[in-house]
Amino acid sequence: MKARVHVTLKSGVLDPQGEAVRHALGTLGFEGISAVRQGKVIEIEFEEADEAQVRAQVELMCENLLANAVTENYAIEIS
Amino acid sequence: MKARVHVTLKSGVLDPQGEAVRHALGTLGFEGISAVRQGKVIEIEFEEADEAQVRAQVELMCENLLANAVTENYAIEIS
Repeated sequence: MKARVHVTLKSGVLDPQGEAVRHALGTLGFEGISAVRQGKVIEIEFEEADEAQVRAQVELMCENLLANAVTENYAIEIS
Repeated sequence: MKARVHVTLKSGVLDPQGEAVRHALGTLGFEGISAVRQGKVIEIEFEEADEAQVRAQVELMCENLLANAVTENYAIEIS
């Protein structure tokens, strides 16, 4: 069973990586871009096959390691 | 209109960030994890509202800037 976690900066938190990408896209001639934000995606493969247990584990992982609750949001997808 | 690009390392390409996360999760007592891979997610907001045009632009952005075609795969979602 596979879990995918998206970790993105909360709105209002400065995102220098996203700004750098936006600037580079402008330099390359791309137009009409109003905002760029960059985040992380973490894919975790589990031996466990019970969705509820996997989700509970991943929630704990996000709280303890994967995301910083002050500045980041996370979203979990199980497949 | 918003595009979300997932950039992940191709399988077979060494992923030291993912390995570091796997190791840290093990240290925290999480068990039954067979693999961890870490990638990037880039969210781009467009003024343009035509899905086909936005998708074509984002494909070009991936080829020219966002992903390294030798080592990385990318997937585009438009919403």
